[in-house]
Amino acid sequence: MTELILAFDFGGTKHTAGLIERGGREWLAQKQVASPPGADGDYDIRTMLGLGRELLAGARPAAVGVSFGGPVNYATGTVILSHHVPGWENRPLRQIIEAEFGAPTNVDNDANVAAVGEHRFGAGQGCSSLLYITVSTGVGGGWILDNKPWRGRDSLAGEFGHLMVDPLGPVCVCGSRGCVERLASGTHIAGRAREWLAAQPERGAVLRRLVNDDLAAVDGKAVAQAAAEGDELAWESLAVSARALGQGIGSVANLINPERFVLGGGTTKSGARYWETIRATARATAMPEVNFEIVPAGLGDFAPLWGAVAIADQAAQ
Amino acid sequence: MTELILAFDFGGTKHTAGLIERGGREWLAQKQVASPPGADGDYDIRTMLGLGRELLAGARPAAVGVSFGGPVNYATGTVILSHHVPGWENRPLRQIIEAEFGAPTNVDNDANVAAVGEHRFGAGQGCSSLLYITVSTGVGGGWILDNKPWRGRDSLAGEFGHLMVDPLGPVCVCGSRGCVERLASGTHIAGRAREWLAAQPERGAVLRRLVNDDLAAVDGKAVAQAAAEGDELAWESLAVSARALGQGIGSVANLINPERFVLGGGTTKSGARYWETIRATARATAMPEVNFEIVPAGLGDFAPLWGAVAIADQAAQ
Repeated sequence: MTELILAFDFGGTKHTAGLIERGGREWLAQKQVASPPGADGDYDIRTMLGLGRELLAGARPAAVGVSFGGPVNYATGTVILSHHVPGWENRPLRQIIEAEFGAPTNVDNDANVAAVGEHRFGAGQGCSSLLYITVSTGVGGGWILDNKPWRGRDSLAGEFGHLMVDPLGPVCVCGSRGCVERLASGTHIAGRAREWLAAQPERGAVLRRLVNDDLAAVDGKAVAQAAAEGDELAWESLAVSARALGQGIGSVANLINPERFVLGGGTTKSGARYWETIRATARATAMPEVNFEIVPAGLGDFAPLWGAVAIADQAAQ
Repeated sequence: MTELILAFDFGGTKHTAGLIERGGREWLAQKQVASPPGADGDYDIRTMLGLGRELLAGARPAAVGVSFGGPVNYATGTVILSHHVPGWENRPLRQIIEAEFGAPTNVDNDANVAAVGEHRFGAGQGCSSLLYITVSTGVGGGWILDNKPWRGRDSLAGEFGHLMVDPLGPVCVCGSRGCVERLASGTHIAGRAREWLAAQPERGAVLRRLVNDDLAAVDGKAVAQAAAEGDELAWESLAVSARALGQGIGSVANLINPERFVLGGGTTKSGARYWETIRATARATAMPEVNFEIVPAGLGDFAPLWGAVAIADQAAQ
């Protein structure tokens, strides 16, 4: 008899559910809805349970896997909070889902789940240790060590974004200075470019044209496009990001000596020069005898949903 | 019948062998010899095998564990090289010892072995994840994750000394800049103090007196003693070390979220203010929600020998 796996991805701005046969590589069905302004934890849960019921159409899943966009206590399956959506504090998400669908459920935060997804189904296949790094509005990360997720003492491991790479760097939202995220995220690539455009009126012509001189419209994508068209101001802001990522990766290579670094997230689509700078900086920072690969993620935005399938499988065993 | 475990610690300047009953907590016998100038790999091996034969007095060990002061391929038990002693390149140390004593043998580098020793017998008891950090002439480290050593892809994990904490810092022997070791080791504490004494003739009166104005005699111990007696130049050099260690520890806490950091090595005996600075800097660098302890090592110079007992046990199982 076919066993069904139900996978949920609670994102900050949209929710996705997917149904797949155990061992399958193609989705039987998938549904995604955007969160309206004002959505809270209650709304999110109600919406996702509804998507699950629609997909199952009365069938019972063998197991459920859940990716949540925020810190989770993996052992209990309880959400600690969401940094984006109110009303998620201490929600026993595993219990709620097990009660609804009558199937064993595993819940973990999106970076860990995406790491599992890339390891099982994406760019991490065939290697036993990797750090998955996602670079978009923030910088997150998840570990696979010895073919298993490494979560750490408080389920907080993988915070590559809060590796300090410059003690004199700008203050980060975490309270420290010069964190990878503060230098490398798409948000800060754009913020830096806006500051420089305001302060250096003679530079950045391409980027200015792309946003019709509306500095508030500068985002990471516009900076990447301007850099690709030869805008040096735009490239310099990207280069700060690439160097911070490379310095962090080189240090982590020395510290943990993983086989592979898998980089995903919108900001990593910033072109060949961006990738070359990450790789060259990482190579220069790591000790010469330490080997590693830096590769693009294979599953794109669907890494958490695929990872949810993988952790669901673990729940059922 | 009592089973005997033979433990070897190949250091850069001295070799130690110990004999203990399996499961025991007291040495039956121990022997240590200093390496004469000009010693090479052949000499070291001959000497250590001799110590082992003396301790065993004709008995046969159940297992042998070996700590080696340099990189080792753990899987094969082959020494890659020694950074201090010539003639160690690609020595099949495990095979040599197994042939001599007819007992299963495990060989690993001293930082990994010391981490295992502290975990099993010292300041890491009762916790499942830790980074052992040794600060003396260099800065080394070894991981315990999920109660086991974590060695990484090339057996090179644990190089906390080559975590970059300052991209504009001084060039390190590894080729990168601003590594923890380049800022924090006893060698560099002394080197910095010597430079400052030479450049600032009006400062460092206590430290100058301690070395009878012979700047070449300034070492890490003298700097620590001068700082304890109120010498601010000496303290400033120690503080650079403490801050680099704290920044590294805080970043590693975010990245791996281990339960504990265990700090050993001569330089960590630099007084309460040194430890307070390490702890305060680590706390300020780590994210507020990440918890960890920083504790002094419990086994001193004998961590590798105790760790050798622990890895020998694994060899016999």
